[in-house]
Amino acid sequence: MRYEELTIEGRNAVLEAFRSGKTIDKLFVLDGCQDGPVKTILREAKKGDTIVSFVKKERLDQMSETGKHQGVIAFAAAYDYAEVEDILKAARDKGEAPFIIILDGIEDPHNLGAMIRTANQAGAHGIIIPKRRAVGLTATVAKVSAGAINYTPVAKVTNLVQTMEQLKEEGLWFVCADMSGEVMYRQNLTGPIGLVIGSEGEGVSRLVKEKCDFVTKIPMYGDIDSLNASVAMGILTYEIVRQRTMSSK
Amino acid sequence: MRYEELTIEGRNAVLEAFRSGKTIDKLFVLDGCQDGPVKTILREAKKGDTIVSFVKKERLDQMSETGKHQGVIAFAAAYDYAEVEDILKAARDKGEAPFIIILDGIEDPHNLGAMIRTANQAGAHGIIIPKRRAVGLTATVAKVSAGAINYTPVAKVTNLVQTMEQLKEEGLWFVCADMSGEVMYRQNLTGPIGLVIGSEGEGVSRLVKEKCDFVTKIPMYGDIDSLNASVAMGILTYEIVRQRTMSSK
Repeated sequence: MRYEELTIEGRNAVLEAFRSGKTIDKLFVLDGCQDGPVKTILREAKKGDTIVSFVKKERLDQMSETGKHQGVIAFAAAYDYAEVEDILKAARDKGEAPFIIILDGIEDPHNLGAMIRTANQAGAHGIIIPKRRAVGLTATVAKVSAGAINYTPVAKVTNLVQTMEQLKEEGLWFVCADMSGEVMYRQNLTGPIGLVIGSEGEGVSRLVKEKCDFVTKIPMYGDIDSLNASVAMGILTYEIVRQRTMSSK
Repeated sequence: MRYEELTIEGRNAVLEAFRSGKTIDKLFVLDGCQDGPVKTILREAKKGDTIVSFVKKERLDQMSETGKHQGVIAFAAAYDYAEVEDILKAARDKGEAPFIIILDGIEDPHNLGAMIRTANQAGAHGIIIPKRRAVGLTATVAKVSAGAINYTPVAKVTNLVQTMEQLKEEGLWFVCADMSGEVMYRQNLTGPIGLVIGSEGEGVSRLVKEKCDFVTKIPMYGDIDSLNASVAMGILTYEIVRQRTMSSK
């Protein structure tokens, strides 16, 4: 298991990383830097649809571990991402209706790690996360997942809405978690399903919510606003598990 | 809301804290220190059944914020504990069968905080934790609970087994979470109930488990060992919520 974070610094090293096909989660480039090598790196970043941030020298100096960043620092994923097709294949191989978790903008690595762990134990076939405004497969996520990251495929996509449209053509339907929904116990959550969980602060984004077939909610009787995101995901995921396993008996 | 941790240092301050009735979670005393004032403090600690650790000077120096600990440092609870009777009363006041969460040795403040949050949202009447080998109501726990600590009573008891015996006389029955149990969906989890959750590493301790009427388990289909403790607690708690709310309809 590889838990170390990969920070890649310096022009040659970063370019090499891109060319070797490594997944770069984020690229930081010195603001205003426009010379040849940097332009080449930016072209490679564009090909892979990598998120690029242009930052001040102080910021790069702060992030740098070697002190020799030459104006470019890249963060590589600690783990490899899967393709959405791998997730569908995992379901087919088991002869099960697909059960996919869509995480719309989880930012806390502890939450993402715990969610991968839960998805694995619940027998979900995979997780889909967006490229932007979300934590990726960092070393912390891997550690918190307690090894589940080695078994449960996580795909990272540019546009969640498009991916959901494609999955609908494969027969999936989507349920998103939101307080405006019907209580989960009263809904039919069986069949090929994608469970959509929103970010910690904002919930499910508007466009993604519009693509969902149903809205579901966890009943809450308390005095506060919400549940912890990974706890809420666990409760919803296992309501799906209950309905999938008990209805087939 | 009080989120600050209370560290009390020095002989007079610590003695005063005990005498004012403040809940001291832990007392650290310089190893070998046997003079009058220290003996008086130790007597007060014994009355309140406070956990006492005898430590080296270096350890105290490290913990000290003022540099003037005089051989004694006490950690006061950031929040007040409730009594078990308060929890039963909360159920009576609502006209509901008691629903209590027993946490047998949770050590991670993030887990305890998330569990208090979940207990609140699930409408549980309170939480019971043991004095030894468990985290108390620290500032971190309060913060992670997202305010739930202000609403859901948490009682701290010396002996969980004795408390469970007393609660059995009040009509409660206990279910504990353990992989040796029957799948939770197939069990009757209604009525006056205490849900027992074990520690992160060890699970439910033997004596506590022996006092339980039933053993229940979350079905797991994954490749790893277990779920995150606060996620598992959330899933079990909401299975009880489902059965309590759906069976009465």
